[in-house]
Amino acid sequence: MRILQISSSSFGGRFFNFQALSLSRSPLCFKSASSMASFSEDSLRRALAEKQSAVESQGNSVRALKAAGASKHDVDAAIEALNALKLQKASIERNLQAAVSGAGDGSAVTKEAFRQAVVNTLERRLFYIPSFKIYRGVAGLYDYGPPGCSVKSNVLAFWRQHFVLEENMLEVDCPCVTPEIVLKASGHVDKFTDLMVKDEKTGTCFRADHLLKDFCNDKLQKDLAISAEKAAELRHILATLDDLSSEELGAKIREYGITAPDTKNPLSDPYPFNLMFATSIGPSGLSPGYLRPETAQGIFVNFKDLYYYNGNKLPFAAAQIGQAFRNEISPRQGLLRVREFTLAEIEHFVDPEDKSHPKFSEVANLKFLMFPREEQMSGQSAKIIRLGEAVAQGTVNNETLGYFIGRVYLFLARLGIDEKRLRFRQHLANEMAHYAADCWDAEIESSYGWIECVGIADRSAYDLRAHTDKSGIALVAAEKFSEPREVEKLVITPVKKELGLAFKGSQKNVVEALEAMKEEEAWQMKDNLETKGEVEFYVCTLSKAVTIKKSMVTITKEKKKEHQRVFTPSVIEPSFGIGRIIYCLYEHSYYMRPSKAGDEQLNVFRFPPLVAPIKCTVFPLVQNEQYEKVAKDISKSLTAAGISHKIDITGTSIGKRYARTDELGVPFAITVDSTTSVTIRERDSKDQIRVNVGEAATTVKEVTEGIRTWEDVWSSFPHHSSASADD
Amino acid sequence: MRILQISSSSFGGRFFNFQALSLSRSPLCFKSASSMASFSEDSLRRALAEKQSAVESQGNSVRALKAAGASKHDVDAAIEALNALKLQKASIERNLQAAVSGAGDGSAVTKEAFRQAVVNTLERRLFYIPSFKIYRGVAGLYDYGPPGCSVKSNVLAFWRQHFVLEENMLEVDCPCVTPEIVLKASGHVDKFTDLMVKDEKTGTCFRADHLLKDFCNDKLQKDLAISAEKAAELRHILATLDDLSSEELGAKIREYGITAPDTKNPLSDPYPFNLMFATSIGPSGLSPGYLRPETAQGIFVNFKDLYYYNGNKLPFAAAQIGQAFRNEISPRQGLLRVREFTLAEIEHFVDPEDKSHPKFSEVANLKFLMFPREEQMSGQSAKIIRLGEAVAQGTVNNETLGYFIGRVYLFLARLGIDEKRLRFRQHLANEMAHYAADCWDAEIESSYGWIECVGIADRSAYDLRAHTDKSGIALVAAEKFSEPREVEKLVITPVKKELGLAFKGSQKNVVEALEAMKEEEAWQMKDNLETKGEVEFYVCTLSKAVTIKKSMVTITKEKKKEHQRVFTPSVIEPSFGIGRIIYCLYEHSYYMRPSKAGDEQLNVFRFPPLVAPIKCTVFPLVQNEQYEKVAKDISKSLTAAGISHKIDITGTSIGKRYARTDELGVPFAITVDSTTSVTIRERDSKDQIRVNVGEAATTVKEVTEGIRTWEDVWSSFPHHSSASADD
Repeated sequence: MRILQISSSSFGGRFFNFQALSLSRSPLCFKSASSMASFSEDSLRRALAEKQSAVESQGNSVRALKAAGASKHDVDAAIEALNALKLQKASIERNLQAAVSGAGDGSAVTKEAFRQAVVNTLERRLFYIPSFKIYRGVAGLYDYGPPGCSVKSNVLAFWRQHFVLEENMLEVDCPCVTPEIVLKASGHVDKFTDLMVKDEKTGTCFRADHLLKDFCNDKLQKDLAISAEKAAELRHILATLDDLSSEELGAKIREYGITAPDTKNPLSDPYPFNLMFATSIGPSGLSPGYLRPETAQGIFVNFKDLYYYNGNKLPFAAAQIGQAFRNEISPRQGLLRVREFTLAEIEHFVDPEDKSHPKFSEVANLKFLMFPREEQMSGQSAKIIRLGEAVAQGTVNNETLGYFIGRVYLFLARLGIDEKRLRFRQHLANEMAHYAADCWDAEIESSYGWIECVGIADRSAYDLRAHTDKSGIALVAAEKFSEPREVEKLVITPVKKELGLAFKGSQKNVVEALEAMKEEEAWQMKDNLETKGEVEFYVCTLSKAVTIKKSMVTITKEKKKEHQRVFTPSVIEPSFGIGRIIYCLYEHSYYMRPSKAGDEQLNVFRFPPLVAPIKCTVFPLVQNEQYEKVAKDISKSLTAAGISHKIDITGTSIGKRYARTDELGVPFAITVDSTTSVTIRERDSKDQIRVNVGEAATTVKEVTEGIRTWEDVWSSFPHHSSASADD
Repeated sequence: MRILQISSSSFGGRFFNFQALSLSRSPLCFKSASSMASFSEDSLRRALAEKQSAVESQGNSVRALKAAGASKHDVDAAIEALNALKLQKASIERNLQAAVSGAGDGSAVTKEAFRQAVVNTLERRLFYIPSFKIYRGVAGLYDYGPPGCSVKSNVLAFWRQHFVLEENMLEVDCPCVTPEIVLKASGHVDKFTDLMVKDEKTGTCFRADHLLKDFCNDKLQKDLAISAEKAAELRHILATLDDLSSEELGAKIREYGITAPDTKNPLSDPYPFNLMFATSIGPSGLSPGYLRPETAQGIFVNFKDLYYYNGNKLPFAAAQIGQAFRNEISPRQGLLRVREFTLAEIEHFVDPEDKSHPKFSEVANLKFLMFPREEQMSGQSAKIIRLGEAVAQGTVNNETLGYFIGRVYLFLARLGIDEKRLRFRQHLANEMAHYAADCWDAEIESSYGWIECVGIADRSAYDLRAHTDKSGIALVAAEKFSEPREVEKLVITPVKKELGLAFKGSQKNVVEALEAMKEEEAWQMKDNLETKGEVEFYVCTLSKAVTIKKSMVTITKEKKKEHQRVFTPSVIEPSFGIGRIIYCLYEHSYYMRPSKAGDEQLNVFRFPPLVAPIKCTVFPLVQNEQYEKVAKDISKSLTAAGISHKIDITGTSIGKRYARTDELGVPFAITVDSTTSVTIRERDSKDQIRVNVGEAATTVKEVTEGIRTWEDVWSSFPHHSSASADD
C-alpha cells in the first residue's frame, strides 16, 4: 500500500488553485515582485522615521527657544524650519501611502472604479444574477442570465470545436454525485481542506489565512508608522501565507491579537475544514458521497474502457465539461471565487517515455508572454518567448505540454482575451505537487490582478496509480514489442529460514522490506554483503535498522524474454475554469465611449462574433408596417441560417437601440430604412454599409462565422452615412 | 398565508413523473388498458377453475369406477375423458400464462431480448458506462461515454436551436446547490417523498409500492390458481398503487404477508423518505441545502428580472438546461430511472386571460397520436388527431399549450423518434395537481412500455404565487391600459366596535374572515343581512360559525379609476427528460442485419445525421501512403467544415470498418480507393456514390446538415458498386 504523500499545499498545486487568486497561490513570485516594489517603500519608511524624529527634535528646539525667551526672529526661523520639516514629512507620507496602496499613480482606485462599471453593466443587463436573489441570495452562487448564458454556451461550443473535435478527443460526461471511495483514492477526502477559525462567541467561521492576510495588508497600507523591519516581516508573511501550517497560522493570529471582524471576539485555533459538499447516496445513510470538486476523477476511473475504445493505443485524450463544487468557507471576489462552477478538463494520456507531439510544429512558432520559474525567482517579469524555443531549451518540460500551452493560447486569443494581459506562468518548485513533472498556468490580468484561468500540468502517473491502488484494477497501458526483447531482471530471494531464526516475529516485515528494495539499493546491498559479509538495513515497518547477513538473502540478475512493456501512462491535464475565463473576457471586452450628444458615457462590449450573446439585431428605422415586414423576413432568414438575433420594432430612437445592443456586445445591426435595401452597422467602428434586403442575412452570417472579415465587406458594399442614424 | 395544497400524488402530477414509469403514473389509463386485456384473462381464469373441478370430478369418477370393479372398457373410457380434460386444462393454463405475461404472443420475451441486444451494444461501444465501475459502481448513476456524450450534446444543441433560438427564449443557467427556503416554498421539502419500508433486521430499504407491485405482478403471473376475483383485486391494487396512503400501503403489505426480498425478514411500516440529496452550504452547518430536483425553480425565482429584461412584456419564455438530482430509494430500469439526470425546461409566462399563440397556425395542421382523457377513461386507445382540431374542440386547453405540444412533436420526430411509437397522453383529473389547467405527456414506447419523456403542463399561477408568498417579493406582471378604466370594487368595512362587543378576544379572527370574503360571498351576506338582519358566518380560524348582525359590517361597491391590471402570470411548462429521450431514441434507432457472408448479425443505429455521434468516417481502402495522404486532406477539410469524423488507417478489412461504424450510427463513410476520386457510402442503404476528392467534404457537409438529401446526392453523382467493398 502506497502512502499518499500530498501535503495541503502541494495538493493545492493541482487544479484547486483555480478557486484561489494568484496572489495566494504563487508566494515566491509575488514575494519577488513585492520586494521590487518594496525597495522604494522601505526607503520611504526609513525616510519617514528619520523625518519624524527630525520634526520631534525641531519641535523641542522651538519649545526650548520659547522657554529661553529667544528673539522673535530666532523663534520664527525655528518655526519655519519646523513647518518645512512637517511639509517634507507629509510629502513622504503621501508617497508612502501611494506606494503601499499598490501603484503610486492611483491605479488601484481606477481599477476598483473600472470593475464597478463592468459589474454594474453585467448585472443590469443580466449577464449574471446573484442566485436566489429574492431570498437574499447565497454567497458564492450566481446564475447566468440570458446574455451570460449565451456567452457561456458559445465559449463551450468553441472549446468543444477547438479541443474535442479538432483533436479527436474522447468526451465523457460523468455525474456530480460521487461516492466517497473515489475521492478517498484521489486524496480529496483527507487533504482538500482550508484552515478555518471560529468566532468563539457567535460561531461565525472565517478562513484563517484570510484574516491574517487582511491584518497584514491593513497594517501595511494604513499604519504608516510601522518600521521598515516590521513592514518586511508582514510582507514575508503575505508571501509565505500558503506554506504556513495550522500551528504557525494560529501562533501568528495570537501574536498579532487578531480577533473576529465586526464582533472583535476571540478566535478559536485554526482547524481544517473539508471543502467538498457532503451528501448521502440512497436512503440508508450508510453511503457517504460528495459533489465532485473537479471533473477529472470521472475520466481517470474510466481509463481502462477509454483506452480500449481507442484501440488500446496511446496517446489519446479524454475531455469533460461539467459542474464542480467547492464549499468555500466565506466566498469573496464575486464571480472569481464561487461555490459551483463549470470546468472543462482534458486528460491527455501518454507514454512517459515518449512525450513528443506530432502536431507540435503547428504551434512552435507562436510567441507570447511566458513567465518561467527562473524569471520569477530572480525578480524579472514575464517576457515574450517563442514556444518552440521554450520547449527546445527545456523551459517547458516536453512537447505535449508545450503543444497544449500553444493550443490554450490560441483558444484564449480567439475568444478575445487581450494578449498583452495573458501570460503563462510556470509553477515554482514549492507550488507543484511532488509527483508533477511541470506545470504552467494561463493567467489573465483583471482588476483583481493576475488570475489563474487555465492550469496545464504534467501530473505524471499519479492519478492512475492512486486509483489502481485503491480499486485493485490495473489502470495501465502496454506497448507490444515487434519482437520479444531480452531483459535483465533483478531477483531478490530472502532466505526465510535464516531470517526466521534471526528475527522471529519480525521476519515478515524484514522479508517484505527486502523484496521492496529498488534496483540500486539492492545492488549496493549485494556489494556490501560480498565485501563486508553483513549490512545494516532500515526496515520502515519496524522503524529500526536490522543487521542482514550474507546468508539471509540472495540478489541476482536473471535474463527474461518480454513481449510487451506494461506501464502506467503519464497524464497531461489542461484544466479550464470557464467562469473565470468568461469574467476576464468581460473585463477585457468592456469599454466606454461618449454618446453622440456627448452628454453621457455609453457601455460597449467588444466581443468577437464567436462569443457575442446575440450576433445581430434587426431594427425598422421607424414604426411602419412595410419596414416591419422586411425586418421579419430578414429575421426569418437569420433564423434559418442559425444566426441568433433580436428584432426590435419599438419606436425607440435608433441611437438608443444601438446603444442598448452595444451594451450586450452585439456585433452587427441591420436597420431597415427602405423596402429594397438595408444598412448593416458594425459595433466598434460604427461604420455602416448598404446591402440589398436579400443579401442581408447572408452577409451577416459570413462576417459572423469568420468567412469574411468586416474590412472585406466594408470594401465590397456601398458605405452608408447618416447624420441622424447614430443619434 | 396560503396553505400549500399539494398532496403527494397531485404533486407527482408535476415533472417528477419523469422519474417514474408511466405504469405507476397513470393508474386509470393502465386500469382501462389492463381491463381490456384482462377480459380474456378473467374468462381464462374462470375456464381454468371450471376445468380444474371437471378434472377433479372426473378423477373421482375414475376412482369410483375402479372401486366398483367396473369393466375395463368403462374405466378406460373414463380415464380417456380425464386425460382429455387434463389436456384442455393444460391448454388453458398455457393461454393464461401467455395472457398474464403481457402479450400472449411471447412478445414480452422478445422485448427483453431486444433490450438486451440494444443495451449490450450501447455498453460495449461506450454509449454509456455504469459510473465508478472500477469501484463496483453506484446504482442509478451512469456516465455518457464518447459516442453517448456526442449524441447528448447534439440533442441539446438541437433543443437550443429548435426552442431557445427559434422562439427567442431567455436562457438561464442556475446552480444545482439550492438553499432550503426555495424548495420549502416550492413544496419539495415537505412533499417530495416516496414511501419506504425497512427490513427490520438488516435495515435494507425498499420502496413500499415497489414491493406491493412486485407481489401483485408475481401472484398474477405465476399463481394460475388464484380466482378471477382475487386477480381482479390484485389488478385493482396495481392500477391504484399511486393513490394509496402510507397506512393503506402498510395494511396491504401486512394483509399479504409481504416480507423483505432475499432475507424474508419482517418489514417496518411505510414512512416517507425525501428524495432530495441533502447537503450543507458553508462551514457553519446551519444553512441546509439540497441538490435541485428540477431546474424550474431557478427560473421562477428570477421571474422579476426576466420580465424586466423582456421589456416588462408578456408573453415570454425562459429556458434552462441542467443537471437535476433525485436520491432514489432503489433505482431500477437502467437508464430510465437514475439519480442524476439532465433536464431541459421551458417556462412560458402568459397572461391568464389570453393564452392564444401567434404562431399556432404553423403547427395547427400537424397530425399525430393523441390520447385524450376521455379515450383513456372509456378504454379506447390513442388516435391520430389534427392538433388544430384538438385545440378548437377544447380537448387541449389553450393555443399556447397546443403550440408547445406541436413543437415537441416536431422536435422528437426530427431526432428520429418513431412517430408510430410516440403519443401525447393527457393527464387524468386525479393525476393533475389541483392548480393545473391541463397537462399532456409526450410518451415514447420502448421495451419498458410507454415512457413519459416530456411533460407539457399549464400550471396556472401556482409557482409564482408560492414564491411571492414565501419571499414577500411580488412576482407579478402588469397590463397598462391605454386609458384609465373605471371599475367597481367591493369594499367590506367591518364595524370594529360592534364586533369587539360581540366577540371580544375573537374579534380579530372575525374581522379577518370578513375581509377575506370573496365577491360572491360578500354580496350574498349583504342580501341576507338586508332581508334577515343577521346571518351565520363560518370563521375558519375559529373552526366555528358566528352570528353576524347588520350593524357589524357594511358591504358596498365603490367606483375607482384603474390605470393598469396587475396579475400573476400563468406558466406553461414543457419539461424534457433528456436522458429518457436519448434512451428511447437508441431503441428506436437500433436494428440488426446479416453480414454479407450471412454468418453473423450486425448492429446498426439508424441515427439521423443531426443526432449521429460522428457524421462521417474516412477510410483508405488499403494501407498505402498516397491514399493516407488523401484521407488526411479530406479529414482536414471536414474539420474546417465543422463535421465531426474519424479517420481509420488500420489495415482492417473495409467491411469490418463499415460494420464498426454502423454500430456507432455513423451515417456516411468516405473510402479512398484512388488519389482523384473517392466513394461515399450511406449507412442504411449501403449505397455508394463516386465523387472527386475535392468535393467529398462539401458533399458530406451538405447531406449532414440537411441542405441536400441523400436521394438528391444519389441522383447527382455516378454510382459505385464494388462486390468486394462491403465484405
